[in-house]
Amino acid sequence: MIGGGQGAFIGAVHRIASRIDDHYELVAGVFSSDLEKSKLSASELRVDPSRCYSGYEEMAEKESTREDKVDAVAIVTPNHVHYGPAVSFLKKDINVICDKPLTLNLEEAVSLVKAVESSNAIFALTHNYTGYPMVRQARAMIKDNKLGKIRVIQAEYAQDWLTTNLESKEGEDGYKQASWRTDPKRSGAGGCIGDIGTHAFNLISFTTGLNLKELSAELSTFVEGRVLDDNVQVMLRYEGGAKGSIWSSQVAPGNENGLTIRIYGEKAGLSWNQENPNYLKFSPHGKPSVTLTRSGAETHPDANAVSRIPPGHPEGYLEGFANIYSDVANAIWEKIETGKATSQFIFPSVYDGLNGIKFVEKSVESSRHNSKWISFS
Amino acid sequence: MIGGGQGAFIGAVHRIASRIDDHYELVAGVFSSDLEKSKLSASELRVDPSRCYSGYEEMAEKESTREDKVDAVAIVTPNHVHYGPAVSFLKKDINVICDKPLTLNLEEAVSLVKAVESSNAIFALTHNYTGYPMVRQARAMIKDNKLGKIRVIQAEYAQDWLTTNLESKEGEDGYKQASWRTDPKRSGAGGCIGDIGTHAFNLISFTTGLNLKELSAELSTFVEGRVLDDNVQVMLRYEGGAKGSIWSSQVAPGNENGLTIRIYGEKAGLSWNQENPNYLKFSPHGKPSVTLTRSGAETHPDANAVSRIPPGHPEGYLEGFANIYSDVANAIWEKIETGKATSQFIFPSVYDGLNGIKFVEKSVESSRHNSKWISFS
Amino acid sequence: MIGGGQGAFIGAVHRIASRIDDHYELVAGVFSSDLEKSKLSASELRVDPSRCYSGYEEMAEKESTREDKVDAVAIVTPNHVHYGPAVSFLKKDINVICDKPLTLNLEEAVSLVKAVESSNAIFALTHNYTGYPMVRQARAMIKDNKLGKIRVIQAEYAQDWLTTNLESKEGEDGYKQASWRTDPKRSGAGGCIGDIGTHAFNLISFTTGLNLKELSAELSTFVEGRVLDDNVQVMLRYEGGAKGSIWSSQVAPGNENGLTIRIYGEKAGLSWNQENPNYLKFSPHGKPSVTLTRSGAETHPDANAVSRIPPGHPEGYLEGFANIYSDVANAIWEKIETGKATSQFIFPSVYDGLNGIKFVEKSVESSRHNSKWISFS
Amino acid sequence: MIGGGQGAFIGAVHRIASRIDDHYELVAGVFSSDLEKSKLSASELRVDPSRCYSGYEEMAEKESTREDKVDAVAIVTPNHVHYGPAVSFLKKDINVICDKPLTLNLEEAVSLVKAVESSNAIFALTHNYTGYPMVRQARAMIKDNKLGKIRVIQAEYAQDWLTTNLESKEGEDGYKQASWRTDPKRSGAGGCIGDIGTHAFNLISFTTGLNLKELSAELSTFVEGRVLDDNVQVMLRYEGGAKGSIWSSQVAPGNENGLTIRIYGEKAGLSWNQENPNYLKFSPHGKPSVTLTRSGAETHPDANAVSRIPPGHPEGYLEGFANIYSDVANAIWEKIETGKATSQFIFPSVYDGLNGIKFVEKSVESSRHNSKWISFS
Repeated sequence: MIGGGQGAFIGAVHRIASRIDDHYELVAGVFSSDLEKSKLSASELRVDPSRCYSGYEEMAEKESTREDKVDAVAIVTPNHVHYGPAVSFLKKDINVICDKPLTLNLEEAVSLVKAVESSNAIFALTHNYTGYPMVRQARAMIKDNKLGKIRVIQAEYAQDWLTTNLESKEGEDGYKQASWRTDPKRSGAGGCIGDIGTHAFNLISFTTGLNLKELSAELSTFVEGRVLDDNVQVMLRYEGGAKGSIWSSQVAPGNENGLTIRIYGEKAGLSWNQENPNYLKFSPHGKPSVTLTRSGAETHPDANAVSRIPPGHPEGYLEGFANIYSDVANAIWEKIETGKATSQFIFPSVYDGLNGIKFVEKSVESSRHNSKWISFS
Repeated sequence: MIGGGQGAFIGAVHRIASRIDDHYELVAGVFSSDLEKSKLSASELRVDPSRCYSGYEEMAEKESTREDKVDAVAIVTPNHVHYGPAVSFLKKDINVICDKPLTLNLEEAVSLVKAVESSNAIFALTHNYTGYPMVRQARAMIKDNKLGKIRVIQAEYAQDWLTTNLESKEGEDGYKQASWRTDPKRSGAGGCIGDIGTHAFNLISFTTGLNLKELSAELSTFVEGRVLDDNVQVMLRYEGGAKGSIWSSQVAPGNENGLTIRIYGEKAGLSWNQENPNYLKFSPHGKPSVTLTRSGAETHPDANAVSRIPPGHPEGYLEGFANIYSDVANAIWEKIETGKATSQFIFPSVYDGLNGIKFVEKSVESSRHNSKWISFS
Repeated sequence: MIGGGQGAFIGAVHRIASRIDDHYELVAGVFSSDLEKSKLSASELRVDPSRCYSGYEEMAEKESTREDKVDAVAIVTPNHVHYGPAVSFLKKDINVICDKPLTLNLEEAVSLVKAVESSNAIFALTHNYTGYPMVRQARAMIKDNKLGKIRVIQAEYAQDWLTTNLESKEGEDGYKQASWRTDPKRSGAGGCIGDIGTHAFNLISFTTGLNLKELSAELSTFVEGRVLDDNVQVMLRYEGGAKGSIWSSQVAPGNENGLTIRIYGEKAGLSWNQENPNYLKFSPHGKPSVTLTRSGAETHPDANAVSRIPPGHPEGYLEGFANIYSDVANAIWEKIETGKATSQFIFPSVYDGLNGIKFVEKSVESSRHNSKWISFS
Repeated sequence: MIGGGQGAFIGAVHRIASRIDDHYELVAGVFSSDLEKSKLSASELRVDPSRCYSGYEEMAEKESTREDKVDAVAIVTPNHVHYGPAVSFLKKDINVICDKPLTLNLEEAVSLVKAVESSNAIFALTHNYTGYPMVRQARAMIKDNKLGKIRVIQAEYAQDWLTTNLESKEGEDGYKQASWRTDPKRSGAGGCIGDIGTHAFNLISFTTGLNLKELSAELSTFVEGRVLDDNVQVMLRYEGGAKGSIWSSQVAPGNENGLTIRIYGEKAGLSWNQENPNYLKFSPHGKPSVTLTRSGAETHPDANAVSRIPPGHPEGYLEGFANIYSDVANAIWEKIETGKATSQFIFPSVYDGLNGIKFVEKSVESSRHNSKWISFS
């Protein structure tokens, strides 16, 4: 693991997610850029001190020569420290599980795609919301043409934790998270759009399989002193004619982690909300709406494959995240058996990551040009 | 009443709404452009045949000379038959309750504003959703600065009844409603945006009091053979810096009458949904969300003034509509006492109607220019 | 109208309900036992002073001799003043619409049944919750055997307004309502069980058509100084083997008017909640649950017959109440045409009222005997 | 681990729960009564074959003499195989985590209490629903007197999976689970009441701290050929005057795992539903209801101590279950440090288990005596 030391949020999430299905064990890492702090974390995490490294280059170097080298590395650092470690491990053909967004900017992203393509390593991006069983259900139903041709997609991801200038209040709860996520040097050109807007964008791609043609964006910054956007409107034109919209905000009081997607086709509609993720509303036109439940009646094998417990026993965020880890584990087993890292898996890939970075940069560009429609290709 | 004969939807709604608080009695009308049909409806409605007129001009003429003339006329015809009757009655200083949108186009709207201004008659536009008690509650809370400065408004109005080409299927259930609402000659330049988008737009104005500065719109038509838009995205920039968005659709399966508004300020957020209208979610930043209930604890006198029954006994669409009628009745009483039709009432006015038509026409213009931002002034 | 003067709650509800479908006009009444107050109310209600009577006997006497006599009388007084007026009007063959519960006690109820049977008048009891379209839908689906044999019924009716000793606080909001509803001389042997428990009991009968065999009840009084019950548990054994339960409470903070019924059969389940009454959840065993919406897809003609507006436009308590009034109006028309008051209508009858009083008295008896099972026959 | 081999449901749940917070590793077990099957499971679970034992006696014997002996044993067998293994391990002072209900019958339960009392081992019963953060929140609020004196408790636990005679359909999905859960030899005197009713009963005790005084029960069996109850009504009288009710059913179509508890006191009410477990509705009397969210504003340290991720990122059943495991881990650490197994922990104890068995047996007794009130002491 790269990152994820004390005070981090997502590192702990990755560790729990990796344990849930018992496919992983944490054996090595660089948990902080400060070696002392890193060692402290290593000790807490019961990682052998000899495998707690001073930096990712050293780790990639040394681990790659061990017989019992790591099967995969998880990169859970802020955005500006994704590219470096990813490339280092890919060069050693060590599989990479990387947090989103992919990189700090498009240049890095394009270069990382090449690194993946020239490596014999699996690369997975933790757009974790694609791991939810009912998201898999939505994807499967759309593939099976239950909605007919897609016409309209409404996605939103609203939070409220940056309603005030948290990033300036050192020592406050949430300060560490707020400070790097609102800092262009560490986050890139997008604030809210990069942090959570990319999840919404990826969720549309994952479920519908549609390719974006053009976008028109309006990025706003409401909190005084903030540099990056904290509220985002994007209108989307997809190939084939579907129209979409993403609203993403971190200044919307009453929204904790409000990721919602609604998809409407010629024959039916679907609606899913991350905060109550075990249910999927399916509305065939001209019939009453149906509530599909995780592992419940008439669910798809693709959804059931990533469910652990019976319907009515709620699974949540960590289980969805774990599904990404377990999908990667399956891919790793396949690679071990076949010797090859095949690139077409159900989990988000480096190409999804590239699209995410393009989505951020093109939205920023559109917004700077008075919401002009920008081609996505 | 002008319009509202057999097969009409909104006419019956107006009649029930007018009866609920016992302020009105139906005594005269032109219920159809076909006099025979009109008389049939008059008979069913127990209206004296001698006051069932051949046209609105005749009615305005004759009623205005009676001692027991009508106190107000309700215009419930398709959009292209709003302007004519409205002007006829205004000229006779007969109060007018007119369905929305105001007129067929901006020219008529501007002219109607003048007609209202030069008349001693009350003019009310039935943007009925402003009549819901919890909408009044939202408006009052925003006036009382419970939200702080408004930053973001997300409004949507989604339906599914035009998912297929209903307007072409004569004889089908809904045909009559669908056919005029999708016909530019009777509806004007906007389809979905005029029919329901204007409600969402008006609801933002009513609750927040904000003035629109600019808009950028993307109108789409998904159903083959349809002339007007059936799905609408509009981004909004308000004076003072607030950003808004309206999504309006009539091709979204699973949405019956999904009018929802969410308003976020520096201090708190509010959320209201028309399909379960007795509740208002209030989310002060940094505190748990609170569910305000109609007539329940901590509600505002403005909301309670338009409630009839205790909390938990749901009021609905007709009661909200009735509140507009009762507000108008109060204004009529005031006029009777003072001799003057004062123009500043809580119910939607001709100016709201003008703004609605501007909203439609400028959205159409923006959409035709590739979603260019258009000034609203 | 008997009762329903100033300060009353249910009188105003009856008046609105009677107006909604334009079948009734209020022309006579005794609005208070105090003639002066009654006249004041009459004036407010625009009732001709000559038809504002000093008592119900006088009204029955005088109205019955008029050519333009009332078509029906609504009795909206506290429970102890139901029997007297009902009998007086029935004797004159004037149709009666009476609020629930039927009478003060079983003796009166039995006697009233006889009065109805020997009269040529229609008698309707306003168990208004049976008027909701989705309650009619539930009833129709059960009749059509969509649930198979009924096994379990869970009904509840919870409120919170009597959480404190409101009845002792003269001058307080709700005092007048609280004082008679907690007074055995005016309410009868049951407090909460009579006031709202009877509604839940009636709703089970109405929807399932089942006959009660035995009951076991536990009545409690939690508020100091209160004489009658304010929390009720009843276990129910129905003929044919179904088991039921009613929980009714007026001391449950957070419950405004929480009437809910859930019915489970061999093949499917149904669930309906009065506070969001336009929806009915239908759960066929082994299939996903379906949400039926008022006037929406796959609804029953019996439900649609009592709906006024399209799905998504919520109807509420007053519309449900109005449906009872309109059903009675239809029965009155039938009587006018045929000369006979037929007794089998869809609206709650004097026999339902008798069962309600039996339910109260037998529950009280069971509770006094340590929740002993008591035969209902 | 004792039990939990192939085809088992709860064994896998225990294993995931034990891993989530990284306090446990599975190293030994008896996964089936059939040694061959057990070894197969051991191999799949990567347990050293030398620590896969032929029976629990052997395991207790041999493990207790190892230096690296197990820190705790999880007993996840059907009810009739709880007592034997529990006693065997307790005798060796090996800590026990046992699934509920405690034992097959009261005699075993009483005896097991003694075994715990005379052992220096921790004993925990996995009434896992007590592990949910918002259940901890409810408990803490009640302790802090936010509700005032408790008056009414409504608990229910409804499922639908036994709506048909699943236990007779060998080879069907769910057959294995259904067959032992409906068999008195393996489940004890209670069917539904033991399997899930005990959870509801325990949840009342855990949150309110109230002691039961008397109960009156009505147990029913609706499915032909079934021996044990599948629908349960219990009325409860608690010491101090609170009244409660439990409805538990496994034949209620549309209910997947519907565990709900509502608690009403003199000052406020609380409501929690297991299927959407991250929220707790708090209703102070005379004020609007508030929605508390896991880890959100104004939550209690006791709840936050068992939360892993921010509000809006749902935790579920497995995380709640894991909280029991982690609480036990903390107790084990304490025992390792102090040498003593202290008995007063937040997790459910053998005394809770004893109460659960008493609840089952006394409910059965009451039901056999026509729902007679039975003293619980």
